[in-house]
Amino acid sequence: MSYVARVQLGMVGGGNDAFIGGVHRIASRIDDRFELVAGALSSTPEKSQASGEALGLPRVYDDFQQMAAAEAELDKGIEAVSIVTPNHMHFAVAKEFLARGIHVICDKPLTSTMEQAAEMAKAVESSKALFVLTHNYTAYPMIRQAKAMIEAGELGELRTVQAEYPQDWLTESLENEGLKQAEWRTDPMRSGAGGSIGDIGTHAHNLACFVTGLSVEKLAADLQCFGAGRKLDDNAHMMLRFAGGARGMLWCSQVAPGNENGLKLRVYGSKGGLEWSQEDPNYLWFTSQGKPRQLVTRSGAGASEAANALSRVPAGHPEGYLEGFANLYSEAADAIRAVQAGASREQAMGLLPGIEQGMAGMAFINACVESSAKDSAWVSL
Amino acid sequence: MSYVARVQLGMVGGGNDAFIGGVHRIASRIDDRFELVAGALSSTPEKSQASGEALGLPRVYDDFQQMAAAEAELDKGIEAVSIVTPNHMHFAVAKEFLARGIHVICDKPLTSTMEQAAEMAKAVESSKALFVLTHNYTAYPMIRQAKAMIEAGELGELRTVQAEYPQDWLTESLENEGLKQAEWRTDPMRSGAGGSIGDIGTHAHNLACFVTGLSVEKLAADLQCFGAGRKLDDNAHMMLRFAGGARGMLWCSQVAPGNENGLKLRVYGSKGGLEWSQEDPNYLWFTSQGKPRQLVTRSGAGASEAANALSRVPAGHPEGYLEGFANLYSEAADAIRAVQAGASREQAMGLLPGIEQGMAGMAFINACVESSAKDSAWVSL
Amino acid sequence: MSYVARVQLGMVGGGNDAFIGGVHRIASRIDDRFELVAGALSSTPEKSQASGEALGLPRVYDDFQQMAAAEAELDKGIEAVSIVTPNHMHFAVAKEFLARGIHVICDKPLTSTMEQAAEMAKAVESSKALFVLTHNYTAYPMIRQAKAMIEAGELGELRTVQAEYPQDWLTESLENEGLKQAEWRTDPMRSGAGGSIGDIGTHAHNLACFVTGLSVEKLAADLQCFGAGRKLDDNAHMMLRFAGGARGMLWCSQVAPGNENGLKLRVYGSKGGLEWSQEDPNYLWFTSQGKPRQLVTRSGAGASEAANALSRVPAGHPEGYLEGFANLYSEAADAIRAVQAGASREQAMGLLPGIEQGMAGMAFINACVESSAKDSAWVSL
Amino acid sequence: MSYVARVQLGMVGGGNDAFIGGVHRIASRIDDRFELVAGALSSTPEKSQASGEALGLPRVYDDFQQMAAAEAELDKGIEAVSIVTPNHMHFAVAKEFLARGIHVICDKPLTSTMEQAAEMAKAVESSKALFVLTHNYTAYPMIRQAKAMIEAGELGELRTVQAEYPQDWLTESLENEGLKQAEWRTDPMRSGAGGSIGDIGTHAHNLACFVTGLSVEKLAADLQCFGAGRKLDDNAHMMLRFAGGARGMLWCSQVAPGNENGLKLRVYGSKGGLEWSQEDPNYLWFTSQGKPRQLVTRSGAGASEAANALSRVPAGHPEGYLEGFANLYSEAADAIRAVQAGASREQAMGLLPGIEQGMAGMAFINACVESSAKDSAWVSL
Repeated sequence: MSYVARVQLGMVGGGNDAFIGGVHRIASRIDDRFELVAGALSSTPEKSQASGEALGLPRVYDDFQQMAAAEAELDKGIEAVSIVTPNHMHFAVAKEFLARGIHVICDKPLTSTMEQAAEMAKAVESSKALFVLTHNYTAYPMIRQAKAMIEAGELGELRTVQAEYPQDWLTESLENEGLKQAEWRTDPMRSGAGGSIGDIGTHAHNLACFVTGLSVEKLAADLQCFGAGRKLDDNAHMMLRFAGGARGMLWCSQVAPGNENGLKLRVYGSKGGLEWSQEDPNYLWFTSQGKPRQLVTRSGAGASEAANALSRVPAGHPEGYLEGFANLYSEAADAIRAVQAGASREQAMGLLPGIEQGMAGMAFINACVESSAKDSAWVSL
Repeated sequence: MSYVARVQLGMVGGGNDAFIGGVHRIASRIDDRFELVAGALSSTPEKSQASGEALGLPRVYDDFQQMAAAEAELDKGIEAVSIVTPNHMHFAVAKEFLARGIHVICDKPLTSTMEQAAEMAKAVESSKALFVLTHNYTAYPMIRQAKAMIEAGELGELRTVQAEYPQDWLTESLENEGLKQAEWRTDPMRSGAGGSIGDIGTHAHNLACFVTGLSVEKLAADLQCFGAGRKLDDNAHMMLRFAGGARGMLWCSQVAPGNENGLKLRVYGSKGGLEWSQEDPNYLWFTSQGKPRQLVTRSGAGASEAANALSRVPAGHPEGYLEGFANLYSEAADAIRAVQAGASREQAMGLLPGIEQGMAGMAFINACVESSAKDSAWVSL
Repeated sequence: MSYVARVQLGMVGGGNDAFIGGVHRIASRIDDRFELVAGALSSTPEKSQASGEALGLPRVYDDFQQMAAAEAELDKGIEAVSIVTPNHMHFAVAKEFLARGIHVICDKPLTSTMEQAAEMAKAVESSKALFVLTHNYTAYPMIRQAKAMIEAGELGELRTVQAEYPQDWLTESLENEGLKQAEWRTDPMRSGAGGSIGDIGTHAHNLACFVTGLSVEKLAADLQCFGAGRKLDDNAHMMLRFAGGARGMLWCSQVAPGNENGLKLRVYGSKGGLEWSQEDPNYLWFTSQGKPRQLVTRSGAGASEAANALSRVPAGHPEGYLEGFANLYSEAADAIRAVQAGASREQAMGLLPGIEQGMAGMAFINACVESSAKDSAWVSL
Repeated sequence: MSYVARVQLGMVGGGNDAFIGGVHRIASRIDDRFELVAGALSSTPEKSQASGEALGLPRVYDDFQQMAAAEAELDKGIEAVSIVTPNHMHFAVAKEFLARGIHVICDKPLTSTMEQAAEMAKAVESSKALFVLTHNYTAYPMIRQAKAMIEAGELGELRTVQAEYPQDWLTESLENEGLKQAEWRTDPMRSGAGGSIGDIGTHAHNLACFVTGLSVEKLAADLQCFGAGRKLDDNAHMMLRFAGGARGMLWCSQVAPGNENGLKLRVYGSKGGLEWSQEDPNYLWFTSQGKPRQLVTRSGAGASEAANALSRVPAGHPEGYLEGFANLYSEAADAIRAVQAGASREQAMGLLPGIEQGMAGMAFINACVESSAKDSAWVSL
């Protein structure tokens, strides 16, 4: 194993209060593949400077335009930028960096409108840089194992997929009580047309497709806004039809008391079944029809190459959300070094989620909204 | 506590191979409230006699007509009959006994067609006898606790209900391999229009309504037949709209490997949430929003009067499926003694499921089939 | 399958408040192998009559002597008697019935003193009747499966056994607040020298030996009385040395808040491991070293003949404590019919626990007390 | 929040194959409080250089003596060193750095002999540097919560403590098949007198004392070597007596198939109980006697200040082993900055485990060995 230099990284968004910015920073550090050296972390120059200083960043900028322009001029400027702003900013920021050939690691969903999403796709198309969308749950080891098992035919022909993502943090209307996280996530101007479906439903949709290798052809959705005065869905029910004949259901909710971050995926085929829960991510239940259920564990007996490649410590030493996120970052570092060494973007991306997954997520949100408006008629994605 | 004489009981169906007949017999014995004294247990006189002798029944009949006529003439003939035949026989048998004032304890679903269901309702209406439908899952202690907690407002205004009932025993097409249980359950002539929705979906629907106190106004369903050559649904996805504004989802399946008898109910409201799973029935998860999850146990700390009234042994000594079923039988015995002592049928029935729940179940099956045929349009029940 | 007449059964003890009497009655009914026809249920004639009438018993006696004498004279008197009195009465009662050739089903522990135990052994020896001790946990289906797997060598050479039985119901000194169950269990005059070790430790010891097929050669124990004013141990720690080289630990407690009836057994050998918990008795965890853990379920995939023979309903339909107890009763009925048909007592008993297990339990209690008194020195059983 | 410069860190041990070295490196990076700049990573200069280059270390040394001498001379040399060698090297390495005032973060157990441990204590005493022993499990958030709850009296007077740490990776004698991890851990020359008791038993002992605030006064142990040809214990049973009257049991094993890294702690007092398992570290079960069990979650409802201070992401986003380890490192960084700013070592250390915990661990190992040699007599620590 020989040393690979750390990718020089910048960040847009992720100032003091922001939850997800801190997650990206830790994820980028865990495997020592990135060095965060520049940032435009907040919406005002003052806040941005304060946040940058608190982190000890070598180069702090007033805003992302200034940062993109300046870094592109540097000899050893940033090679990649992490975008962790609210959804409505993703496109404007990404465009600046993509245009300068700086690789983009962008939080999901892709944008807040389908129009911006299409423009984003064009911007990615015309850039040489990579565009990575942090559908982080795809990088849990046992999710990779599940995907590999399905590809290997261990479940037979897939029949039904049950995806769910319940949370409870918006049970009460905290957006009316000044909680910043709740404010922008329930505001159509900043989040787009989807509430829970955009924030967490897209994760469940993405994960179901990633693991099964199938795409959703049609869905029929029933969206609800239960929180008093809420404008975006906080609970969503839907039925899915996958290409090839498998069917599914998806439930996401931010108003289900007792559920913290309950992303869960269950897949059943003609020969077997798999069950995985994000809150206990080191376990994968597998049943070969007619045999006892097996509890496969990360790095444990029965764990696959695909899973072990993303594990750091032995079985029984739990890895979690941050390690899963770090796996995505480390694969992004590999991809960046690969394209720099001449690989095609397709080759380099491997299993990393990118613009296609982003477009699929936007199509998912739009189909949910459209179907619900049409009294849950089936809508094609 | 003074002694109450055991109810004299007969049984139609439930011969040698039948699973559910044995369940009813054990359930009737557990609390010593019934004495099984007569039966017409099989489809032919020979089989019926053989089955009756094997059980040591005092009075064995060739068929149910003969039994109804003879028992009605006896001084100490049966006071109640359990009907445990395949679905298509329920009506013909019940009619005979109801007409003679003999109380009926009937397996679900009510009948195999809506027409018969309507006739059954008339037969019940014009009889003085009680009609109990064995929606046995309603009689688990922790289900009664859940119902009581919701009635007491501990969940606030109900928002979403997640009901599911996955099994895996029809993953392969066992009906083609001579398994009797599989044969009649997948045969439209004997089961009616519903496959999994009739056999197990009705249980999930019934339980969701029982616990929440709500009725389903509309549903949108997508039914599938995955098993090779199968004519009835073996997997069903649906979205629910309850009267009063709550929404829900329901999944039932007989082709989900790794699921044995996975009836599960989750209910969420503006103040809290509840989760219960049939395979671990002594536990009820309760969350008051903003507080740690609590694991309430049968007969344990936090168990309600409603739950304790249906428990026999202390906390930590698990009761199961047969005890839950026995609770229904014991309440039926109470109800029979109550009407005999002059109570009205309404008073006597208490929480026992009867003809109304049976009609609701039939409406559920019909709505599922109709919605699925209409490309999952919302259909009123 | 042809009919086998029900065993005529009497009961001594088990009047109104008694928990375990009701358990024995239900257990005797579940499989319809017994008919309870006589009883001397309480310590005074008045209470005994009242309890007998409440149960609708055909023949009620003032006391057990009267009952034994009278029943022995009857043409169709009882064939077996269940003894469910406090421990100190077991011997006196059993002696009366054994002397008359009436089979005895006796609650554990055998007696309250070693001297009585020795006399009990003589009484059994000199009687033609069977003596069954209700170590009921040995009759759970998954316990039988565990035993069969170990016998078949699936765990290899056994190395360590972890047995525990925590409860919490005596955390506070309820015996000072008038709780009858707590009074006699904490009273050396009625319970004998062992508190928690006699009441529940014997179950854990018995189960460990039953499942592994090993006997405890020596133990080193540290007993404690934590409850204010308590005279008998309410918590006990011990180390075990089994014949043949396996070692173990055993913990029993009645003062461990959060534990209801937490009997748990874990056995590990050179090739695999097994884990079972009484509160979730339908599951057995099995690991073949180097392979994923398997969850074997009652009546499910991987369940053995030995387990299935003691199951009534399909996998996923949970059976519990009462069904486990009923298995013991049903095996006792088989044994009674077998000796009546000429089988030897040894043949007839099969896996039923009897006088030997009772003596082993008494030796266990004595060794615990002796070791603890000797500052936890190793004491042979 | 203002920026605190990263602690300049060196490492001794932790070359290519070593599991624990990688863990320390990740742990030091997660919160960005350290910068690894120097190392002597292996037993030969060549291996050390290769490992250092693979990691991209700025300064690589041939051996630890060279490193200590050189770094102490540098203007901006390392402020702290992590020692991740096999046990028998801990003392020699620590001495060198302590003597030069470089803070030491040392893997446990302290040393391989009691004599060295005493010398280590002197070396710490006479140094101005901090000595941190990585009893990493003490830094899990829910462990801190448990400790805080016990200190606050929520469990009342403590009565019994059940600690266990089963693994299965030495079920077969892998040390004979060339597995490096197995070789040194089963070799008395490199590990010291304790096998499983030193490697994992010390963790269980330390955790029990840390959480309860109690010390073990005496123990009675029974050690076993089950693996063929093994010289050190691979399974150990023991009973504990804590100062103040609480009692306990401890089991550690490396030969328990189906257990990966099953460190588990259960504590019971006169008012309540707590249960925690390392493999599912985000959960803490708490029972207030007489109330339903509560599942307290990291960062969730009911989580304490003490727990939240060590959490990075919201409830339901699992943190694991590496984050727990990182907590210890971050507290070490705080401590180093504090002593540099003039705080006393006592103040600075806070809850960090140090030389005292190391001595207690050595005393634990010695007492286990002595007690087992004396046929499990009680031995004082």
